Amino acid sequence: MDRTDPAGAIAAAAKRCSNWGRWGPDDVRGTMNFLTPEKRKQGASLVRRGVSFSLSQSFDANGPQKGWRRRTNPVHTMLDTGTDAAAGVQGFPHGIGGADDVIAMPLQCSTQWDGLGHIFDHGIAWNGRRAADVVTSLGDAVTGIETVASVVAGRGVLLDVGRHLSPGGELADGFAITEEHLAATIAAQGSAVGRGDIVLVRTGQLTRARRNGWGDYAGGPAPGLSFTTADWLHRTEIAAIATDTWGFEVRPNEFDDAFQPLHQVAIPHIGLFLGEMWDLDALAEDCAADGVYDFWLTAAPLPITGAVGSPVNPIAVK
Amino acid sequence: MDRTDPAGAIAAAAKRCSNWGRWGPDDVRGTMNFLTPEKRKQGASLVRRGVSFSLSQSFDANGPQKGWRRRTNPVHTMLDTGTDAAAGVQGFPHGIGGADDVIAMPLQCSTQWDGLGHIFDHGIAWNGRRAADVVTSLGDAVTGIETVASVVAGRGVLLDVGRHLSPGGELADGFAITEEHLAATIAAQGSAVGRGDIVLVRTGQLTRARRNGWGDYAGGPAPGLSFTTADWLHRTEIAAIATDTWGFEVRPNEFDDAFQPLHQVAIPHIGLFLGEMWDLDALAEDCAADGVYDFWLTAAPLPITGAVGSPVNPIAVK
Amino acid sequence: MDRTDPAGAIAAAAKRCSNWGRWGPDDVRGTMNFLTPEKRKQGASLVRRGVSFSLSQSFDANGPQKGWRRRTNPVHTMLDTGTDAAAGVQGFPHGIGGADDVIAMPLQCSTQWDGLGHIFDHGIAWNGRRAADVVTSLGDAVTGIETVASVVAGRGVLLDVGRHLSPGGELADGFAITEEHLAATIAAQGSAVGRGDIVLVRTGQLTRARRNGWGDYAGGPAPGLSFTTADWLHRTEIAAIATDTWGFEVRPNEFDDAFQPLHQVAIPHIGLFLGEMWDLDALAEDCAADGVYDFWLTAAPLPITGAVGSPVNPIAVK
Amino acid sequence: MDRTDPAGAIAAAAKRCSNWGRWGPDDVRGTMNFLTPEKRKQGASLVRRGVSFSLSQSFDANGPQKGWRRRTNPVHTMLDTGTDAAAGVQGFPHGIGGADDVIAMPLQCSTQWDGLGHIFDHGIAWNGRRAADVVTSLGDAVTGIETVASVVAGRGVLLDVGRHLSPGGELADGFAITEEHLAATIAAQGSAVGRGDIVLVRTGQLTRARRNGWGDYAGGPAPGLSFTTADWLHRTEIAAIATDTWGFEVRPNEFDDAFQPLHQVAIPHIGLFLGEMWDLDALAEDCAADGVYDFWLTAAPLPITGAVGSPVNPIAVK
Repeated sequence: MDRTDPAGAIAAAAKRCSNWGRWGPDDVRGTMNFLTPEKRKQGASLVRRGVSFSLSQSFDANGPQKGWRRRTNPVHTMLDTGTDAAAGVQGFPHGIGGADDVIAMPLQCSTQWDGLGHIFDHGIAWNGRRAADVVTSLGDAVTGIETVASVVAGRGVLLDVGRHLSPGGELADGFAITEEHLAATIAAQGSAVGRGDIVLVRTGQLTRARRNGWGDYAGGPAPGLSFTTADWLHRTEIAAIATDTWGFEVRPNEFDDAFQPLHQVAIPHIGLFLGEMWDLDALAEDCAADGVYDFWLTAAPLPITGAVGSPVNPIAVK
Repeated sequence: MDRTDPAGAIAAAAKRCSNWGRWGPDDVRGTMNFLTPEKRKQGASLVRRGVSFSLSQSFDANGPQKGWRRRTNPVHTMLDTGTDAAAGVQGFPHGIGGADDVIAMPLQCSTQWDGLGHIFDHGIAWNGRRAADVVTSLGDAVTGIETVASVVAGRGVLLDVGRHLSPGGELADGFAITEEHLAATIAAQGSAVGRGDIVLVRTGQLTRARRNGWGDYAGGPAPGLSFTTADWLHRTEIAAIATDTWGFEVRPNEFDDAFQPLHQVAIPHIGLFLGEMWDLDALAEDCAADGVYDFWLTAAPLPITGAVGSPVNPIAVK
Repeated sequence: MDRTDPAGAIAAAAKRCSNWGRWGPDDVRGTMNFLTPEKRKQGASLVRRGVSFSLSQSFDANGPQKGWRRRTNPVHTMLDTGTDAAAGVQGFPHGIGGADDVIAMPLQCSTQWDGLGHIFDHGIAWNGRRAADVVTSLGDAVTGIETVASVVAGRGVLLDVGRHLSPGGELADGFAITEEHLAATIAAQGSAVGRGDIVLVRTGQLTRARRNGWGDYAGGPAPGLSFTTADWLHRTEIAAIATDTWGFEVRPNEFDDAFQPLHQVAIPHIGLFLGEMWDLDALAEDCAADGVYDFWLTAAPLPITGAVGSPVNPIAVK
Repeated sequence: MDRTDPAGAIAAAAKRCSNWGRWGPDDVRGTMNFLTPEKRKQGASLVRRGVSFSLSQSFDANGPQKGWRRRTNPVHTMLDTGTDAAAGVQGFPHGIGGADDVIAMPLQCSTQWDGLGHIFDHGIAWNGRRAADVVTSLGDAVTGIETVASVVAGRGVLLDVGRHLSPGGELADGFAITEEHLAATIAAQGSAVGRGDIVLVRTGQLTRARRNGWGDYAGGPAPGLSFTTADWLHRTEIAAIATDTWGFEVRPNEFDDAFQPLHQVAIPHIGLFLGEMWDLDALAEDCAADGVYDFWLTAAPLPITGAVGSPVNPIAVK
């Protein structure tokens, strides 16, 4: 890899890994096309004990956001409260009282999916469309996250790279996870990863942030996928991939002057859905305990019309 | 039922149906306690074809809200756009561009769960707690929706009361669904409803609103559960119940001067989770076609800390 | 005027009325440059009785907005309340309690200024700049409303066209106010309008909306300035102009297929600041009573960095 | 002053300084009643050069807020942009394009007025009303900031205590400004302060924050009014007072366990309007240069119905 030529490396990877046209010129679901009813049947068959895990961080003012590009933590306010009800000021009959609430938040402030309209390559979005025709101030008119509202339920596989590669279970910030690391983890776990799977990569960074405080979790140095895994992401035909980090790929990025180069290949060219800031720790503990790393996973985005991402509470059931 | 005495009827039903203390004085999950791993195993066994259905309405400016108690439709705005990326004004290196977005919305503006902090009876919340101690301007400090973040996945059962009772598949506004109607629907479908199930009641009102426009969908006349079903809701030990209407119970309510009296029993006394504004139509078509009315259901709320409700994209898989 | 050729008429008016370069290539204040200290001295000298008038409509959920291009009415929610304080749940010492609040609103939802970044002509903004270089998703980087934060205080002149032209004091919806109407009103009032003045044109539409309900106040038919007044707006060298209507100019617009053609000349070419939805009724009553139509006017926008408009509470003092 | 007894000191000061009933039992304007037309005439007479100063900090993401009680910096997003217009995707006729925007912000995030519903003493609000009857989740139903929408324009007086007491022009954090300091500043400036004036106290802390970064500007140590100035605030019959600090009074507060004790007297008992986070530096420079410390001041709150505070762009004209 030539650290000085991100543009060249991205262009080459984009060419090798492109899925443009694979599902026709009108496709809006990218790799979610791999997630078939057959995969769902396989996923559901993995429920053995009926134990469920939420893979979502909380959504509140104590989150990691520090304002980068106006990404803030959620602001949750009340429209009605129990104190109002108790004070008898709500004006309802027969003693009923109520509370109600509102939220204002960036769609990518906490546990989230990147939609296909989230990233562009030289002004071009997924499937070769012009970004300016896809995502305007009115939102994503083509590949809004609502297009996959019913899709994201299937077989999940945890790759606990942190636990496999590091005695403490946490990869260092700046650690680039390569295809070899992924393969070694898969082998060590006895897992299989293939078409239509939703792959969850645990780095351990969130474990560390939970212990030490957020610091620069939102955008700072982090372990993550190496740019060189683009071909693996493409070849395995996975439906989606998620990590416990802010930005999925290793940070600082592996080029001298770069910003999320793997995104630039993965989203517009592979058509891959990326999950970020997932909380994989409780699930990972359970997987380490019973040696079973695959499960039934539902991770349905909120169908916010025209959104380029969505908050999500992914539920894994083993 | 004495139409002139809602307070008396509510007090009596509350006494008959109370689950206070059933799961200890510290309980925060109410009827979600019925949703056990065993139920999840049963639910997963219902996945036969792997077909998935989103039961969520869209989240956008075209929703039904008209401002009642400041409930508005979602306001979705962009932080970054494809037009900016195409214009080359984002300042990122190597041709990467991005879009990002924000939402401001009431948590109960579209498809949603009512949490246990949503409704009070004479200033008292679920399990006998004082409402003023539970839900302040800071949110629900005790029974916030995050307490059931990992729970809501199990066996779902659709009761298509609209289709069973009406040739056109739609109950009239103001139609009160009684226990007898529920029993008849269950019998006609060959369904079973019991402990830990998540019951979905289709009235057909949303079908009508989709055809005719929203009108007063948000708070106006609607078919829904009769106040008299409180005992059924309690006795069946279901984990949750959801409808395709704004307010779950029949409107106008069945007392002369009333506001959502069944809520006043169901939430603070039974500890029951209510889903509202679910879109059951596609699922109902499928159930009518294959005669199978139960399925796997994941309906995980966003874990918004302290929220008294949550938007949700419920996913049913058959 | 050729009703079938808005583009031609706009181009011609733009050419006749352009102020591009008048205050140098870097200018960001347009006609606010006419509002000099001299004008402020003149304005302050008009204070005779010390009576003040707020020219602002209220900012609340009962406003006229109906969602056009996502313009909603303000959503005001509380962060802390008196009920919380009274319930003793705020955790402050020595009996202090507090209330605090939040607002979410379009900047042009109620009484407002249009900034110079609000309207473009064929992709070109005030002073000939490319719109894409001026206003991105990050806001207006050049002519943000903060650039005139300290300027908007001077001599105000009310032109009560409604009262002058109509016995009831209200112009009909669709009535186009021409230069002749303005001149007649000025003459009837004994007023003078000239360089640096802030002109307030009362049509009476708000009076009617207050009586009859909002109806289509936000974007529907309305009295307002004729497209043909562009030259008057330019020639008089006024600093700004405001009306009691949603859109300043007459609606429906005077071309067969048009959207706010006078804006397209006034903002990007004249560099004129437009005020909309001002409440001129109380002031107009006073002016009619004492025959004095000019006053000291402060109408300072909130200096929201990069905003293309701003809510404002204009204060007239006579 | 007994540092260990804030409650006792507050109760005594409240008793000495109470204005309850002074303007009748229904009063909602407190000390704004002192701001009469006579004062406005006096204020207007102070305009000599016509030079205007905005006393507002900017409203943007770079503000001082760090999330205390959910007070964040403003979030400004675009509904329409110049990049959209330039890309030709807006769908308007004849080449018109537009930009529009939205803001979400706490009403007290930047330069602001505290309204009379902002602070309570033992559950009691201004004029002796019960806080729970005044400010609920629906807002302030009695003393909302809109009640003074037209009032706040009159004579302003700058007391540049920082410049008078400190060679560098900046008081140290924790410095308590006493009545003696105020009197000395007034004498040194040759100013007069009396009934109906709007007094602006410059401490210099904002000057420091601008140089050194915000640090704990929002809630941390700061110079400010001593609790002991309560009697001065009452006796002088000023209409309002504002500072260049977050919290008006000295911080840490002058009792061992306290939170803003002077607020507890000033707002609910004196009925005094407090301004915070005003930017007085440019005005102060000018006053120091010409030795004139009084001026016309318009500081009209946005009439947000039921708000307990308001952002404001105060304009001083000399």
